[in-house]
Amino acid sequence: MGKKLKYPDGSIREIEDEVKVKKKNITKSRLGIDFEKEINDSNEYYLSKELAAIYKKPTPVQIVKVDYPARNKAKIVEAYFKTPSTTDYNGIYREKYIDFEAKSCKELNFSFENIYEHQIRHLERVEKMGGCSFLLIEFSSKNEIYLFPTKILVEKYNDCCNGGRKSIPYECFKDNGFLVEKGFNPRIDYLKAVDTYYFKKKTKK
Amino acid sequence: MGKKLKYPDGSIREIEDEVKVKKKNITKSRLGIDFEKEINDSNEYYLSKELAAIYKKPTPVQIVKVDYPARNKAKIVEAYFKTPSTTDYNGIYREKYIDFEAKSCKELNFSFENIYEHQIRHLERVEKMGGCSFLLIEFSSKNEIYLFPTKILVEKYNDCCNGGRKSIPYECFKDNGFLVEKGFNPRIDYLKAVDTYYFKKKTKK
Repeated sequence: MGKKLKYPDGSIREIEDEVKVKKKNITKSRLGIDFEKEINDSNEYYLSKELAAIYKKPTPVQIVKVDYPARNKAKIVEAYFKTPSTTDYNGIYREKYIDFEAKSCKELNFSFENIYEHQIRHLERVEKMGGCSFLLIEFSSKNEIYLFPTKILVEKYNDCCNGGRKSIPYECFKDNGFLVEKGFNPRIDYLKAVDTYYFKKKTKK
Repeated sequence: MGKKLKYPDGSIREIEDEVKVKKKNITKSRLGIDFEKEINDSNEYYLSKELAAIYKKPTPVQIVKVDYPARNKAKIVEAYFKTPSTTDYNGIYREKYIDFEAKSCKELNFSFENIYEHQIRHLERVEKMGGCSFLLIEFSSKNEIYLFPTKILVEKYNDCCNGGRKSIPYECFKDNGFLVEKGFNPRIDYLKAVDTYYFKKKTKK
């Protein structure tokens, strides 16, 4: 926590060992604004139907200086982006703790440069503790979204750490992920994919 | 979301119906920095022991302008505080979704001016959805901390909305809350109170 992020080119001061240095292509795969908005809208829909309470966490910012130019109106005049401690989204669904990171990819390849190691470890820890966690990934050129299980993400990442492939190809998401339906409301019905991935799987056991 | 907070005097623009206008005494009972630090330290302890993964959400900020004075170094030069959508803390413990708001009181009285209605409704919703939620309150003059169940908070708040008392006295927390032990590590062992309040209660049923 409290580590500064060079932004938006993506390179990072290595003041935390586990933080991987992000490369220039972060801008390409940074969570697309449209994708983020669609997830937020879907979460509002789920909330309105009392199906789930899942929120995006605010962007972490280190506030250095606050001015009061007009009466009572605080204006932050110096602040810096911080490295997020955890993931983008969390909340509750079907009595379960839900936690996920959302990413939008222009290319048909997801590079590990686009996610922090501590975020992967966080997702892993959530699963271990009995929650439901995953990567929600959009391939914008295909207009496809997949729920990608933490277990496989971790396997691929561990391979990468041991000298293996530094990215996950689209085909792997297609083969191992759960396709998320897009619609009018909710725009991105990712909880349906959670049902298939997490809850139905559980029931079968 | 996206609503600006006048800060730190506490008065708020009423651009969201459910947001209650906070009065001047917010500064007195705003979450004390020490209390916040102790909770964060306790959460780090819990995480290190793999007991729970509970984090404070970042302060929500509306970023308006970002400059790049030095190469690659982003500096936020105009931003404003936003009203938080939910509560201070959430995460997972004993496979359950945990959600709470933390408050530090100098006076032996907790006024409803110090919490947003939508935060109370959020805590209520979490309970309804099968999570564990509560108010964690510190009475600094007594050096006492209580876990206060959402159910009673909601009852008292509904009374307040119907013309009843606008605050909850210390005695009510003492009678209905769960005293949280303070120690060396964790500094504030609030999960022990969660065990008593939530898990043991459940087992008895």
